[in-house]
Amino acid sequence: MGRDDSVESGYGFEDEPKDKMRAKKEEEEEMVMSVERVFESKEVPSWRQQLTVRAFVVSLVLSVLFSFIVMKLNLTTGIIPSLNVSAGLLGFFFIKTWTKVLEKSGMLQVPFTRQENTVIQTCVVASAGITFSGGFGSYLFAMSGRIANQSGSAPGTNDYKDPSLGWIIGFLLIVSFVGLMAVVPLRKIMIIDFKLTYPSGTATAHLINSFHTPEGAKQAKKQVRALGKFFSFSFFWGFFQWFYTAADGCGFANFPTLGLKAFENRFYFDFSATYVGVGMICPYIINISVLLGGILSWGLMWPLIGKKEGDWYSAHLKPSDTHGLQGYKVFISIAMILGDGLYNFCKVFSRTILGLYHQVRGKNNLPRVVNGSATESGQLSFDDQRRTSVFLKDQIPTSFALGGYIVIAIISIISLPHIFHQLKWYHILIMYLAAPALAFCNAYGCGLTDWSLASTYGKLAIFVVGSWAGASHSGVLAGLAACGVMMNIVSTASDLTQDFKTGYLTLASPRSMFVSQVIGTAMGCVISPCVFWLFYKAFKDLGLPTSAYPAPYANIYRNMAILGVEGFSSLPKHCLSLCYGFFAASIVINAVRDSVPKKYSRFIPLPMAMAIPFYLGSYFAIDMCIGSLIVYLWERSNKTKADAFVPAVASGLICGEGIWSLPSSILALAGVKPPICMKFLSRAELKDS
Amino acid sequence: MGRDDSVESGYGFEDEPKDKMRAKKEEEEEMVMSVERVFESKEVPSWRQQLTVRAFVVSLVLSVLFSFIVMKLNLTTGIIPSLNVSAGLLGFFFIKTWTKVLEKSGMLQVPFTRQENTVIQTCVVASAGITFSGGFGSYLFAMSGRIANQSGSAPGTNDYKDPSLGWIIGFLLIVSFVGLMAVVPLRKIMIIDFKLTYPSGTATAHLINSFHTPEGAKQAKKQVRALGKFFSFSFFWGFFQWFYTAADGCGFANFPTLGLKAFENRFYFDFSATYVGVGMICPYIINISVLLGGILSWGLMWPLIGKKEGDWYSAHLKPSDTHGLQGYKVFISIAMILGDGLYNFCKVFSRTILGLYHQVRGKNNLPRVVNGSATESGQLSFDDQRRTSVFLKDQIPTSFALGGYIVIAIISIISLPHIFHQLKWYHILIMYLAAPALAFCNAYGCGLTDWSLASTYGKLAIFVVGSWAGASHSGVLAGLAACGVMMNIVSTASDLTQDFKTGYLTLASPRSMFVSQVIGTAMGCVISPCVFWLFYKAFKDLGLPTSAYPAPYANIYRNMAILGVEGFSSLPKHCLSLCYGFFAASIVINAVRDSVPKKYSRFIPLPMAMAIPFYLGSYFAIDMCIGSLIVYLWERSNKTKADAFVPAVASGLICGEGIWSLPSSILALAGVKPPICMKFLSRAELKDS
Repeated sequence: MGRDDSVESGYGFEDEPKDKMRAKKEEEEEMVMSVERVFESKEVPSWRQQLTVRAFVVSLVLSVLFSFIVMKLNLTTGIIPSLNVSAGLLGFFFIKTWTKVLEKSGMLQVPFTRQENTVIQTCVVASAGITFSGGFGSYLFAMSGRIANQSGSAPGTNDYKDPSLGWIIGFLLIVSFVGLMAVVPLRKIMIIDFKLTYPSGTATAHLINSFHTPEGAKQAKKQVRALGKFFSFSFFWGFFQWFYTAADGCGFANFPTLGLKAFENRFYFDFSATYVGVGMICPYIINISVLLGGILSWGLMWPLIGKKEGDWYSAHLKPSDTHGLQGYKVFISIAMILGDGLYNFCKVFSRTILGLYHQVRGKNNLPRVVNGSATESGQLSFDDQRRTSVFLKDQIPTSFALGGYIVIAIISIISLPHIFHQLKWYHILIMYLAAPALAFCNAYGCGLTDWSLASTYGKLAIFVVGSWAGASHSGVLAGLAACGVMMNIVSTASDLTQDFKTGYLTLASPRSMFVSQVIGTAMGCVISPCVFWLFYKAFKDLGLPTSAYPAPYANIYRNMAILGVEGFSSLPKHCLSLCYGFFAASIVINAVRDSVPKKYSRFIPLPMAMAIPFYLGSYFAIDMCIGSLIVYLWERSNKTKADAFVPAVASGLICGEGIWSLPSSILALAGVKPPICMKFLSRAELKDS
Repeated sequence: MGRDDSVESGYGFEDEPKDKMRAKKEEEEEMVMSVERVFESKEVPSWRQQLTVRAFVVSLVLSVLFSFIVMKLNLTTGIIPSLNVSAGLLGFFFIKTWTKVLEKSGMLQVPFTRQENTVIQTCVVASAGITFSGGFGSYLFAMSGRIANQSGSAPGTNDYKDPSLGWIIGFLLIVSFVGLMAVVPLRKIMIIDFKLTYPSGTATAHLINSFHTPEGAKQAKKQVRALGKFFSFSFFWGFFQWFYTAADGCGFANFPTLGLKAFENRFYFDFSATYVGVGMICPYIINISVLLGGILSWGLMWPLIGKKEGDWYSAHLKPSDTHGLQGYKVFISIAMILGDGLYNFCKVFSRTILGLYHQVRGKNNLPRVVNGSATESGQLSFDDQRRTSVFLKDQIPTSFALGGYIVIAIISIISLPHIFHQLKWYHILIMYLAAPALAFCNAYGCGLTDWSLASTYGKLAIFVVGSWAGASHSGVLAGLAACGVMMNIVSTASDLTQDFKTGYLTLASPRSMFVSQVIGTAMGCVISPCVFWLFYKAFKDLGLPTSAYPAPYANIYRNMAILGVEGFSSLPKHCLSLCYGFFAASIVINAVRDSVPKKYSRFIPLPMAMAIPFYLGSYFAIDMCIGSLIVYLWERSNKTKADAFVPAVASGLICGEGIWSLPSSILALAGVKPPICMKFLSRAELKDS
């Protein structure tokens, strides 16, 4: 199982890092043969010097920013693009401004180094990672009564736990650090011994390196300016839109851009700068897949199934009842997600085993495919030598990691059942025994393919623990809680190994990276729940399908848990056969994608991406395709400029509207309501009134 | 009297041609010293060869296009920018495409010359000129019952003549050709003897010349492409907006962009591509003046006067009744228009007399200020020699012109009283006796200053004939009809002498120009009424203040006629004193503008431009200021590119939405209504419903 994670977490769209790599290629060529020769004159600061106060102040600011962004994405569609590049850019921008001010006032003592930049980036990624792996848009919110109510009279409906700031922070603090401990011993194996690629991490490192070369900084400044411009535009656009949303169904988000008929079937451009930006970052095929999925489902299937109302399913159900049309939407998309996940799990797992087999036999020719700086096998380039020596200088004792893991595991086993009384101590023990192996698999697979399979392992936990605890009918909550534990460990493992790769390529000390990750994780455990709490209190309809924040995955996760506990009995007529069909189709499409040559496969859509609009509708697909269109036209008119500025512009669009959700939710909390309602009425409605 | 014409007809914003001249300066410099040396190798076709069938086909198409555009502008705000450049550009584009197709098929016999381009431009300007001087937005529509009703119980309310296709075409055919005859004898005097500048005509000639020089065509192609791009954008934007206008008060034109309170006082951005384009062409000071006028009136004066309701004027009046608040709006703007007009009439007239005095005394040093190609006095440059010889080659006998004038005058005297029985034969006789002198004045003044005073002479006719016929209380209609006769003669005289200047500079034969003008005028006499008819039938609320087509000048003209006949007795309380104040202010502001140095005067607003939003509100001022802002930012980032492309982009924006009004009015006629209403409700209204 697999790519669903990539689409959820965004830390690994299949083609995305490749795309980024392409953009970086030119820069790489500019840097001639050796990056470290260029940097040779610059001293590498000690690991303590890399950890500056200013770096953590900036990290804190950016963590809050990215928490808002990721939270908003979690709760709207669950599609989260990679924000590593934005984090790098903004980190550079903040510190650069800071140091420039200090420089002018003559107070600058420590110059801004690329190691410090990496520390910030790592800290922000660790913190924002919690916002994703904390499950606020998925398993954690799936436990709430509001989501439970939507499942109709399915089993486990009465089994819920409403979110509350206290237990969420506690839960996250308990489960989030264990992944860090698991990563420590993996670090050297993955990066030095296996020489894994980690495409996203490598791309970020290239970006940071290019910022800190004297010529690179000029380009960086321009990029930062572009980011700033589109950030402000996107922020004020969000602000402007707010004025017209005095009531439900008002505002630009309900603009029937393609006509009322299309609007009813959720085909419209919703003027979201965020998703236009997301579309600009995502590769074309993702956006096309999402649109295709929307056309297939809301354009074709749902209207057809809707005609069978009263025959296939009871006619007088709430629209959100999974025994009606909603059931088809939820379970068919689950089937596609699971099919895609299963296929990719098998694929990545087999490659993992194969790779390990070769590693162990000493023929490590498989994993060393991409890493450009490695020359002939055995011989290390200057870059590699220097990087390796820096990377190995500051050690973190394995005994410390092992001890930490055991201590945290014991604390978890004792305390977690107090938070979720449905989760027993033996469930947790088993998970903590299995976790290191799975964390290793995920970190290794991610290094090879850039896909984090975190949420797939989470789903595995839902089904295993859910059915295990199932008999007593509290399996739904046990499953979701287990999912949380598993996801946190596994997701941290892959994200942070990715960061270590960045550190390796920028000569940052592993020890400073580790400290930064610890601090970032701690920040995330507090910031993310608070941000979620703000959204939860500010938007009373959060999680309902008609809301601006439908949190689609929360519903999907809960229904997966129900399915795991109870089996297929609750599904409406013919739904199961359709699910089988789409599950199979998902596997077949993936297999075809992998077996035909690249020049054809790049036209074959991704089932995982197709599944999301099954539940939500196509509106964000249209935003994303507009993003694609912009990139396409831009690339056609000026390829070099587009490659350099698309990530900056897209980040600006995403971050601006993302940060607007902060004042917007504060306004909602303060009871300030927008003054105007922009309403769209059909001519028939006009006559009635 | 004066600049009001410039704003209404747009054939002469004070600063606008200067602005254009600036843009052309660089091109001029590129063309080194002599334009005609560059063109020496190219043979000048005979006058018959200049009149090709394709030229008139293209002219017909463009005439329809520009009739729609000018009509739309007439009926919305009455602000019409100079479309000469667009006509030149589009004429070039059409024939170039045409000849290219023929060239490829091997059927091209006559190459496309700049003379042919001038013929098209002349024909289109003559035809579109009728759409303005036909008074569809002013005197002609002011005669209708619909406008008469809005004047409340003012005298002459029952005195109306509703528009009908038949009499309008007849009326235009009778009065439009007489101006042509008056121009013929003026031609040589104005252009060869007096060497007048005619800035707009000169700018257009430069444009046409630059298109037909080998290097110029490349730039022209790019400009045409920019025009095409923004044309399509503007057209489809108009189309898109249409879908959301299912009922009154719906759609983008009612978007409270700056909030509901501001919207009530008509401050909002109405998403009109046309007026953004108009703002891009108009100089900054015009746009700022319009905005200032809006703020002064709708932001300050009307709310304050509104508080006196029941005291200064009766409380229970229709909003459109000129005895209420509407009266202040109408008469204060009339006062400002008349003050500005009077000042400029005196200014231009004194300069005319002074210029003539110097001409007659042979010291012609005043009018020869600008014409760059004249070297020292007496000695003619190569360009001038060549141009003069071509210009004088093909003569039009003065006897023909004189005979034509007398014949048309006799026809008019006999037939016009049959159309307007309030207009007596002696009114017409007097006007035809005075007209040649006024036509001469107007053509001369326009050559010096680029201002056509046509509608000021029209207003003169309203007051003179209106008060003459006044006693019998049918003076309102007589005045308006006389205004039409006068405006047509005087406006044609200046426009066509302007065209002769273009012809002079592009070596087009005066004879071919004359034929082109005759054909263009004939086209205009048929096309304009038909286009008006389409609007009139399609939009049932045309002319009402709340309509999308309020035709503001129709109301203003009618009230001027009433004022002329009846005096000031019908005005609400204190209105007259306010009128005196604004009339004086208008003169003072103009005097200050003219007496302080240019570096200060360019910051002083134009009273005429300020007067329009007094009646209409600021929404189009905001559009125009956005246009200014675009130009400002563009110029700041790339001056050369902005200078070259602003006219093309602006023309594209204006033409696209202008031509959209063709399908839009056809849809309205066919009873096809848009499907959606985009409505804006305040939160209070929401609670009520």
